[in-house]
Amino acid sequence: MSLPRIAVDAMGGDEGVQTMISGAALARRRHDKFKFLLVGDEARIKTALDAHPQMRGASEILHCEGVVSGEEQPTRALRRAKTTSMGLAVNAVKTGDAGAAVSAGNTGALMAMSKLALRTMPGIDRPALAALLPSLGDNDVIMLDLGANTECDARNLVQFALMGAAYSRIVTGREEPRVRLLNIGTEELKGTEQLQDAAARLREATGLALSFDGFIEADKINRGSCDVVVTDGFSGNIALKAIEGAARFVTDLLRNAFTSSLRSKIGFLVSRPATELLRHHLDPNNHNGAVFLGLNGVVVKSHGSANPTGVANAVAVAARLLEDDLTQRITADLAALRETRLRSDGDQGEAA
Amino acid sequence: MSLPRIAVDAMGGDEGVQTMISGAALARRRHDKFKFLLVGDEARIKTALDAHPQMRGASEILHCEGVVSGEEQPTRALRRAKTTSMGLAVNAVKTGDAGAAVSAGNTGALMAMSKLALRTMPGIDRPALAALLPSLGDNDVIMLDLGANTECDARNLVQFALMGAAYSRIVTGREEPRVRLLNIGTEELKGTEQLQDAAARLREATGLALSFDGFIEADKINRGSCDVVVTDGFSGNIALKAIEGAARFVTDLLRNAFTSSLRSKIGFLVSRPATELLRHHLDPNNHNGAVFLGLNGVVVKSHGSANPTGVANAVAVAARLLEDDLTQRITADLAALRETRLRSDGDQGEAA
Repeated sequence: MSLPRIAVDAMGGDEGVQTMISGAALARRRHDKFKFLLVGDEARIKTALDAHPQMRGASEILHCEGVVSGEEQPTRALRRAKTTSMGLAVNAVKTGDAGAAVSAGNTGALMAMSKLALRTMPGIDRPALAALLPSLGDNDVIMLDLGANTECDARNLVQFALMGAAYSRIVTGREEPRVRLLNIGTEELKGTEQLQDAAARLREATGLALSFDGFIEADKINRGSCDVVVTDGFSGNIALKAIEGAARFVTDLLRNAFTSSLRSKIGFLVSRPATELLRHHLDPNNHNGAVFLGLNGVVVKSHGSANPTGVANAVAVAARLLEDDLTQRITADLAALRETRLRSDGDQGEAA
Repeated sequence: MSLPRIAVDAMGGDEGVQTMISGAALARRRHDKFKFLLVGDEARIKTALDAHPQMRGASEILHCEGVVSGEEQPTRALRRAKTTSMGLAVNAVKTGDAGAAVSAGNTGALMAMSKLALRTMPGIDRPALAALLPSLGDNDVIMLDLGANTECDARNLVQFALMGAAYSRIVTGREEPRVRLLNIGTEELKGTEQLQDAAARLREATGLALSFDGFIEADKINRGSCDVVVTDGFSGNIALKAIEGAARFVTDLLRNAFTSSLRSKIGFLVSRPATELLRHHLDPNNHNGAVFLGLNGVVVKSHGSANPTGVANAVAVAARLLEDDLTQRITADLAALRETRLRSDGDQGEAA
């Protein structure tokens, strides 16, 4: 098949051009059909490409000088979007010059540019940022929103459930991914009014390609009993970072423990295959690539500190969403949602 | 010194009377000045006491038949408070028959009973649930609120900061504990209006016995750079459970890894002192005992599944707060807060 090419913001991220290009090259080594539009400083991209000759025929360079910094206010970045590598990568998706964009730059700026250039899909009020988290189950669990929307109403949450399920079907192959709303208890009366309202709508909706299983508490996110965890962007960001921080805390303690005595050090050497397995499972690079769902186009956010493996994973996520036509899947699910009685609550509409 | 006795709800918790009594006995083995009012079924308490002869002279039994179940609605439990072990334990604090109460029962019911019986302190609108979390620093970090208040305004958050700092001074010995507000970024404009408003008030306040260091993201909670993390009950509950779940996830992965091959098993045996150290650090029993701050009296919630070590820690927390007169410390800090310009915003008052 002919896969539309992927625009890569070569200048974003803390690790620089080399890492982004190496990551794209690594993705291409795994899937040689990938083609790239590399956006950024031409001289530096060419230098980085020297180490990856197989990338030359697969890549076009789009030169620009502007770079969005990590601290830049999104509103400021928006004003000069067309002069920046991030803005031009997103714009390439809008014009059809690329099928998807990948950036490791400023998340807020990427969100703002993507919303403005690509607009939300018909029927979606607000896009959401979704990521894959490791779990004890067979598949990664998808959590959204992770910070695109600080506050959300019930209607937003229902749309997030739908978008997350569409994404999960691609990842897990399940016809009806198991969806839950993040809450501080599992009883029906727990949590905010918005959560109770969203749960009621999801329970009543019929014909959705998902199985709504009620609420989930934050300690169960990684247990593997759920495919999609839906939440507002504030709580989602808190939960995601709490998990990252706790995982790092435990591995730091483990490292301290393993170096606390000679015996521990020997034990560490003997059990290295085990601890390497753990490291592999927990390495955020192996779950890299958060997706802005609900836009007319695919935009993937790579972590700012991702290494080439991480960038390659983000590129692979973008390619997979393109191949499986995520946008089309969400459109079909929105149509199903309209078929249900949820259609009647148009009074809760809200501009994106 | 003569320490007022501690009322123990012997019937609460998943582990039963034996565990509560064994926990109290263990606490007393460490500090032989502890005295107890054991509330619940007299026959079962007496049976449990048979294994702990040293407890007899130190304990009085207050018999009652009612028990609050884990699933019971707080409003329902409230109506029959005076006939339950939980309600009578809390009431003993109100009458002065005990200095503090410890229960491992239904959190919502314990909160409701404590609020009604003890009332909030003058100047505090709402009590908050605070717990100790392990950190990479020298001391545990205190986080509050953990679920007592689903939604909070800026004034609540400022009061939580004050109460958390008073608690932290007892735990850490620091004159000015380092306090931060949990948020989804550290820039001033991040997060909700309530958070920005609370941060502004804390920045402007003078004379408080705390150092306000701005916002903190959830991945930094355990890093040891902060003594008190302040948040609303919804986000706090999400963060706490996400940390617990992630820690369990990592240790489950580690267990799987260590049993994945003979070599790993041998490595595990060799490095057992290291992994035991990790287990000790992460065992929630070693951090057991969440406190309802802001009431006219000390009430400590022990985890429902805590073992005797956990219960003993919860009892020790209660004793420590009594000895250091937490309530008096909070009163003094509230007076200092009134000295600042914050006094003028009484228009934002809200009933507890």
